[in-house]
Amino acid sequence: MDFTPSAISSEYRSKVADFIAKEIEPVEADYLRTLRSLDDPWVVLPVIEELKAKAREQGLWNFFLPKAFSEASGHGAGMSNVDYAPLAELMGRHFIAPEVFNCNAPDTGNAEVLVHYGSEAQQRQWLEPLLAGEIRSAFCMTEPEVASSDATNMAATAVLDGDEVVVNGRKWFSTGVGHPNCEFVIFMGLTDPEAHRHARHSMVIVPIGTPGFTVERMLPVFGFHDEPFGHGEVTFDNVRVPKENVIAGLGRGFEIAQGRLGPGRIHHCMRLIGLAERALELGIERGMGRSAFGKPLVNLGGNRERIARARIAINQARLLVHHTAWLLDTHGAFGALSELSQIKAVVPAMAESVIDLAIQLHGAGGLTDDFPLAGAFTGARSLRLVDGPDEVHLGVVARIELAPYKQGADHNGHHERQA
Amino acid sequence: MDFTPSAISSEYRSKVADFIAKEIEPVEADYLRTLRSLDDPWVVLPVIEELKAKAREQGLWNFFLPKAFSEASGHGAGMSNVDYAPLAELMGRHFIAPEVFNCNAPDTGNAEVLVHYGSEAQQRQWLEPLLAGEIRSAFCMTEPEVASSDATNMAATAVLDGDEVVVNGRKWFSTGVGHPNCEFVIFMGLTDPEAHRHARHSMVIVPIGTPGFTVERMLPVFGFHDEPFGHGEVTFDNVRVPKENVIAGLGRGFEIAQGRLGPGRIHHCMRLIGLAERALELGIERGMGRSAFGKPLVNLGGNRERIARARIAINQARLLVHHTAWLLDTHGAFGALSELSQIKAVVPAMAESVIDLAIQLHGAGGLTDDFPLAGAFTGARSLRLVDGPDEVHLGVVARIELAPYKQGADHNGHHERQA
Amino acid sequence: MDFTPSAISSEYRSKVADFIAKEIEPVEADYLRTLRSLDDPWVVLPVIEELKAKAREQGLWNFFLPKAFSEASGHGAGMSNVDYAPLAELMGRHFIAPEVFNCNAPDTGNAEVLVHYGSEAQQRQWLEPLLAGEIRSAFCMTEPEVASSDATNMAATAVLDGDEVVVNGRKWFSTGVGHPNCEFVIFMGLTDPEAHRHARHSMVIVPIGTPGFTVERMLPVFGFHDEPFGHGEVTFDNVRVPKENVIAGLGRGFEIAQGRLGPGRIHHCMRLIGLAERALELGIERGMGRSAFGKPLVNLGGNRERIARARIAINQARLLVHHTAWLLDTHGAFGALSELSQIKAVVPAMAESVIDLAIQLHGAGGLTDDFPLAGAFTGARSLRLVDGPDEVHLGVVARIELAPYKQGADHNGHHERQA
Amino acid sequence: MDFTPSAISSEYRSKVADFIAKEIEPVEADYLRTLRSLDDPWVVLPVIEELKAKAREQGLWNFFLPKAFSEASGHGAGMSNVDYAPLAELMGRHFIAPEVFNCNAPDTGNAEVLVHYGSEAQQRQWLEPLLAGEIRSAFCMTEPEVASSDATNMAATAVLDGDEVVVNGRKWFSTGVGHPNCEFVIFMGLTDPEAHRHARHSMVIVPIGTPGFTVERMLPVFGFHDEPFGHGEVTFDNVRVPKENVIAGLGRGFEIAQGRLGPGRIHHCMRLIGLAERALELGIERGMGRSAFGKPLVNLGGNRERIARARIAINQARLLVHHTAWLLDTHGAFGALSELSQIKAVVPAMAESVIDLAIQLHGAGGLTDDFPLAGAFTGARSLRLVDGPDEVHLGVVARIELAPYKQGADHNGHHERQA
Repeated sequence: MDFTPSAISSEYRSKVADFIAKEIEPVEADYLRTLRSLDDPWVVLPVIEELKAKAREQGLWNFFLPKAFSEASGHGAGMSNVDYAPLAELMGRHFIAPEVFNCNAPDTGNAEVLVHYGSEAQQRQWLEPLLAGEIRSAFCMTEPEVASSDATNMAATAVLDGDEVVVNGRKWFSTGVGHPNCEFVIFMGLTDPEAHRHARHSMVIVPIGTPGFTVERMLPVFGFHDEPFGHGEVTFDNVRVPKENVIAGLGRGFEIAQGRLGPGRIHHCMRLIGLAERALELGIERGMGRSAFGKPLVNLGGNRERIARARIAINQARLLVHHTAWLLDTHGAFGALSELSQIKAVVPAMAESVIDLAIQLHGAGGLTDDFPLAGAFTGARSLRLVDGPDEVHLGVVARIELAPYKQGADHNGHHERQA
Repeated sequence: MDFTPSAISSEYRSKVADFIAKEIEPVEADYLRTLRSLDDPWVVLPVIEELKAKAREQGLWNFFLPKAFSEASGHGAGMSNVDYAPLAELMGRHFIAPEVFNCNAPDTGNAEVLVHYGSEAQQRQWLEPLLAGEIRSAFCMTEPEVASSDATNMAATAVLDGDEVVVNGRKWFSTGVGHPNCEFVIFMGLTDPEAHRHARHSMVIVPIGTPGFTVERMLPVFGFHDEPFGHGEVTFDNVRVPKENVIAGLGRGFEIAQGRLGPGRIHHCMRLIGLAERALELGIERGMGRSAFGKPLVNLGGNRERIARARIAINQARLLVHHTAWLLDTHGAFGALSELSQIKAVVPAMAESVIDLAIQLHGAGGLTDDFPLAGAFTGARSLRLVDGPDEVHLGVVARIELAPYKQGADHNGHHERQA
Repeated sequence: MDFTPSAISSEYRSKVADFIAKEIEPVEADYLRTLRSLDDPWVVLPVIEELKAKAREQGLWNFFLPKAFSEASGHGAGMSNVDYAPLAELMGRHFIAPEVFNCNAPDTGNAEVLVHYGSEAQQRQWLEPLLAGEIRSAFCMTEPEVASSDATNMAATAVLDGDEVVVNGRKWFSTGVGHPNCEFVIFMGLTDPEAHRHARHSMVIVPIGTPGFTVERMLPVFGFHDEPFGHGEVTFDNVRVPKENVIAGLGRGFEIAQGRLGPGRIHHCMRLIGLAERALELGIERGMGRSAFGKPLVNLGGNRERIARARIAINQARLLVHHTAWLLDTHGAFGALSELSQIKAVVPAMAESVIDLAIQLHGAGGLTDDFPLAGAFTGARSLRLVDGPDEVHLGVVARIELAPYKQGADHNGHHERQA
Repeated sequence: MDFTPSAISSEYRSKVADFIAKEIEPVEADYLRTLRSLDDPWVVLPVIEELKAKAREQGLWNFFLPKAFSEASGHGAGMSNVDYAPLAELMGRHFIAPEVFNCNAPDTGNAEVLVHYGSEAQQRQWLEPLLAGEIRSAFCMTEPEVASSDATNMAATAVLDGDEVVVNGRKWFSTGVGHPNCEFVIFMGLTDPEAHRHARHSMVIVPIGTPGFTVERMLPVFGFHDEPFGHGEVTFDNVRVPKENVIAGLGRGFEIAQGRLGPGRIHHCMRLIGLAERALELGIERGMGRSAFGKPLVNLGGNRERIARARIAINQARLLVHHTAWLLDTHGAFGALSELSQIKAVVPAMAESVIDLAIQLHGAGGLTDDFPLAGAFTGARSLRLVDGPDEVHLGVVARIELAPYKQGADHNGHHERQA
C-alpha cells in the first residue's frame, strides 16, 4: 500500500495549483462581480476565453480524458482516474476553474460517451470541438413528471421513423443548456418498452436549434441560476434527427449511462472535496479574524471540535474517493459498484456539512454573495439529489452488502448458548 | 398540567385557519408567480391590501400585541404568548400570512418596543400607523464589520449633539427595509462607551428619507431577496434626528433589546414550526404520490423512519416553545432565560432538517421555486444565525445550567469507593 | 394551556423528594456495596424492607395505581398518569427507589392487569399481596427463538385441557423472576392460532414452583445481572394451572397487553428522565471538580455545548412524556397511540446519550461501579429494545402519520408550475 | 497511489486468516463458556497455550514488532505498520486471537518500549520472555484521583534514593495486571516537578511481587472484568526497585510515552475495525435469519440504510488508519501527529455505533453473553476514553489544523464586496 501520488499526478497537480494561484484567484472575484452586474449574465466573459487559451497553451487541458484514449489521441495528459483525482479537487475550489481547464461537467461525461461509443462522424462533429473548448453541451435525462431515480420510470421517447429518430418528452435539470456555446444535447429516452429493462433506452445527439426543441426556462436552485451555464427545463416536441445521431445503436442507452457514471462520480466528489477544503479554510480565517466575548470565534463553544471533525471528514472522504478511483482504474466499474455509490452517498453530505460550518463561522454574511459559501452550499446540497439521491445510493450499497447472505438461516443463532 | 388551549386561543385559531384556507391558500401561488414575473418585485400587490382589509374587518389583526396593552387599548385580541403561539404556527405555513394578519416581523418587535418604551408622541406618529398596517418598519442592529452576536462589538454610534442625535455607522440584515411602505427604522448604536456595558447603547427612530440614510443594497440569502421586504445593508452618514426620536432615553438600548427578544423568539419559532409542518405534509404527499422501484417513495429505504422522526421532532419543538411561552407569560423573560435560548438553538435546526427531508422527497424539483421548500429551507437556515447563532444560545443555556455548581469541588468523587 | 402541576402531584412530589433525600440517598451507596460484596446477592437486604415500611407508613405507596381504582379501593393516592409522572421521574434517579415506594416494574404493570382484568379471586390472591409489597412478580412474554417485536411470532402456548390450562414454551427477559419474593409470573402464549390475530393469545397466572416451570438462568445485560431481581430465561414444560388462572378469558391476551402498555411506558420513560437528570448532575459535578490543561473539564472542547444540548434534550423528552400522559388521561390509549410510541423511540436513546456524556466527563472511572453511570447506561440501552425496539415504534409513528394520505395522488405536484 | 497490500502483508494475512478459521473459531465459544463457568476465571486455560505454541511454530508470532528490530533480531516477521494493519484487523475479530499470536496489548507497547529504550539487561530479563509469550505485563499510567488525559496532572512519583528508585502512588486501568502470567509492570511517575514539562516523568520497571506493590481490585467495565487479564487498580507504597529498572534514564518518561503511542493506536484501531466487521456480519446474519411483520429484519424500517452506512463507516475508518500507518512508516510519529489523533477520535466511536446496530438487530439477546456483541460494545466504548478521551484527540486535531493561521487577520473579510 503506497499513498504517494504518481509522478504525472504530482507534476500536473503542482502546475494546476500554480495556474490557479497566478491566473484564476486574482481575477475570480472580479469575474463574479462583473457577471452579477449584467442584465443578461448568460454570456461568456472574455476573461474566460483568455484563461482557457492560456491553460491549453500550457498543456493544462482535458485531464479528465480516459487514459487509453488520451494516450492514443494525444488529447489530455494520459491520466488514470486516481491520477486525475487530486487535480479535480483543486479545480473544485474555484467556480470557474473546471471550465478553464476544459474539465467541466457535463461536457466531460458527454465527451467520455463519445470517446467510448461515438461513431467516427460523431467524434469529428461533436467530440473534437468539445475537446477544443469551442462548444459546450448538455445531458437530458431527468424528467419532471416522474421519480427519475428509477430509470424505468422514464417517459420521454426516441423512436425510429425511417431514417430519422423522433424524440418527444420533457426533461429538466439539463445542466449546461443555458450556456451560449452549448451546441448539442445528449438525450436519453425510451425506444422499446418491451425489451429487457436494460435494452429499452437510447441516447441520441440533438443539436441545439433543431425544430421542436425548446428550452422552456432556466431553473433556480435555492434562488441561484448558475449563469452562464445553468440548469434547464427543455421540451422535445417531435424533434427529428437523422438516425446517425443515435449513439452506439438503439437500445444501448442504459449500457452507455452505466459506463458514463463511474468517472463522473469521481470528478463530482473530488470537486466537492476541494470545495469543502476551501470552505474550511475560509471558515477558519474568519473564525480567527473575528472575536466575540473576548476570544476569536474559533475558540468559542464547540468550534474547535467542529473544525477537527471537518478535517477528519474531509480526509476520510478523500481517501474513500481515491480508493474508489483506484478500484475503478484497476477493477473496472463493476469492481467498484458499491464504492461508486458509497462516495456519492457520503461526499455531498460531508461537503454540505463543512460548508455549513463555514457559513456559521461567517455569521449572516455567510448567507450572502459576499463569500462563495452560499453558492457552494447549494451546489453540495443539489448533489445529494443529482445523479441519484443519497437514499438510492445507500440502497445500492446495502444490496451489494447483503448479497452474500442467505435469508432465513440464522447461523449465528441461539444454538451457541444451548450447545 | 393541562394541555388544552384557552378558549380565546382555540376560537381565534379556528378563525385564522378558516381565513387561511378560504382567502390565502387559493391566491398564494398566483401571488408568488405574479411577483416573480415582475421586473421590479419590490411592490405591494393589490391582493395583499385586499387580504389585509378583510382580515382586519374580521378582527384577525395584531394578535401579537402584549396582552395588557391589547386589553387597555382595544388593539389586537388580548392574547398571552401561549395563546398566540398556535396562531403564529398557522401563519408560519404561508409566506404572506403574517403580513395579512399584521403580525409580521420586524414590525411586531418594533411595535412592542414602542408599546413598552415609546413616548406618547412616538406612539402616535409610528405605532398607530404600524398597528393600522399602513406603514412598515425595519430594525437596524447587526453590523457587517464585527461579530454582532456579541453586542459589545457594536461600532455604530448615536451621539447627542444639542437637540439632535447624530447617527453614524453601517448595518446589515435590516429586514423589511426594502418594503415600499417602510417608513422608519429603529437604529441601535453606541452612545457612551464608558458606561456600564448594559448602559452604553441607545435606540433611535430614524425616518426613511432622513439625509445621510442610504440603503446600499438588498442582500441575497442563498440567492433569494425575499421581495418585497428583503434584508438591507444601510449606511448612516451623520444622520441627524431630533432627540425626541430616542426611545426611552439614551443608554437604554440594551434594556429595550432584551425585552424585545422574548416574544419575538416565540413568534419566530412558532412560525418555523408551522413551516416544518407544512413541509412535512408536502413531503409526504409527494412521497405517497410518486413511485420508484415499484413502491411509493415513502416506503423506500429509511423514509418512514425519517418521517416518524420528523413528526417527533416537530412535536417536541412545539411543546418546548409552548412551555417557554407559558413561562414567559407567568414568570417573565428572566424566568424563561434559558428556555428562550433553548428554543432558538433547537427550532430553526429542526425546521431546516424537516424541510431538507421534504426536499429530498421531492427530488430535484424541491430545489426549485416550483415548491415553497427551497425558500422555506433558506428561511430556516438563516434563523440559525439571525437573532444570535445557535452556538451563542447554547452558550447561554450552558451558563445557566452550570451556575448552581461550584468549581473544584468533586463531590461525587472517588471517596464513594474508598468509604 | 397550563404547565402547573396539580396540587396532589406537587404535594406528593415534594414528599417523595424529601423521603429520597432523607432516607434513600444516605443509605444507597452502602446498600449497593453490601449487595455486591455478597456471594449470593439474590437477596432482599433488611434496609429495603425497613424503607418500604417507612414509605408505606407515610402514605408514599402505590402511586402508580389507576386513578379510578385508587379512589375506589383506597390503595395508592388517586393520581392520574400526568400527576404521577413527576414522581416516577424522582424514583428513576435511584436504583432502589421504585421498590421502596412499591412502584417498581413489572409489578406495576402486572398489578394494573389484575386491577383491570383480574377476577375477584385473582385480585385477592395476587393483587392484594402485590399492593402490600409482600410479594413480587414477573411477566413472561419475550421469546428467545423469534423476533418478539412481532407478537404474531410468539411460539409458546397456553392450551385448555379440561379444567386446566397447559403452558409450554421458552421465555426470556422475564424481569423480576430472580427476586426472592417473586411468587408468580404472568405468562402470555398462543391459544388459538386460527383466531383473529388479536384474539389468539391468552394471559395466564403461573405460580412460582409449579411443576415444569424452571428458571434456566439469569441473563447478564452488558455484564450486569441487576440483582436481586434480574432478568430470567424460563422454560414452561407442560406446566398445568387451573383454568381460573387465565386472566379475563382465553384469547384476550393481546387486548390486555395493549392496555398494559400505556402507563408502563410513561413510567419507564419518566424514570429514565430522572436517571438522565441525575447523570447530568453527576457529570457536571465531576466536570467542574476536575481540571485538565488549566481548565475545569466542563470548559474544555465542546463540553458546554454538549451540556446545553443534554439540558434541552431532557426538557424536550419530559414535555413529550408529560403531554403523552395527559393525552392518555384525557383521550385514552387509542388517543395517544402515536405518542406512546414516540416517547419510547425518543426517551431511552436520549437517556443513553446523556449518560454517555456523563461517563465521558468522568473519564475511565465512569465505566466502573464506582459511579452509578455504567449501570444507568446499560439500563437505558436495554430499554431501546425492551417493550419493542426503537425501530418498531418509529414504524408505528410513521404508520399513523401516513394514514390520512392517499397513495398515488401527487396533489402538490407539478401542476402548480404549469398553471 | 496504490492500494495493493505488500506481498509480505498479503501472505501473512492469508496465513493468519487460515489459522483463525481452522484453530480459533472452532474453539472460541467453548473457551469462553468454560472460562465463564469457573469460580476463578483468572486463569490461562490449556487451549490458549496450545494455540500459542501452534501459532509460534508456524511463524505467526510477534508481527507487531518494529520492522527494523524484527529484521535485526529475527523476531517477528519484519513488517511495517501498514503491513501489519490488516493482520491486526483480523485478530480484532476474536477476543483471544491477539494473545494467540503474541500481539496483545499492552505487552506489544511494553515490548516496543523495551526494544527502543530498554537496556541490554532489561531486554534480556523482560523483553525476551515477553516475545516468547512466557510472561505478560501491564502498564501503569492512568490515576484515579486526577484527570489523566492531561499528563501534567500525574501525581504518582518515582524518586531516586541512592541506588534505588522509590515508587509511590495509585494507578488504575492497568490492563493485564490480573493475568496469572503478569510478571512486571511499567510504571510512569513524576521524578522532577521542576524540570521542563516534558522531562519530569520517568518510566520504571516494577516486578510483580515487589513489596509495597498491591493490586487493590480488578475493575469492572460495564459489569465485565475481562478475565483473565482484566484492568486493575494498584497501589505503590514505597516500592523500591534498583535504579537499573529505570527505562532510558530518569526524566525520559514523556519521550518514551510519546513514541509508544503511534503503533499502539494503529493496533487498537485496526482491531476495532475487525470487531466492527464481525459485528456487522453477525448483525446481517441475524437480520436475514429472523423475520417480523412478514419480512426479514434487514428489510424493515431503515435497517438497509443503516447497514449501508455501517459499511461506509468501516471502509472510511480502515482507509484512515491505513493511511495513518503509512504516514507513520514514511514520515514518523511527528509526521502523523494529527492523523494519530484523528483515528483515535473516529474509530472507537465508529465501532461502537456499528456494534450497537448489530445489537439492535439481535434484539434483547444482543445484550447478553450469548453473542460477543455486548462485550465488543463495552470494549469499543472503553476505547473512547482509554489512551485519551475523544475530546482530547479532537483538540489535538484542531490545534494542528489552526496552527498555520494567524489570529486577528480576517483576510477573507468584507473587502471583497467593497473592492
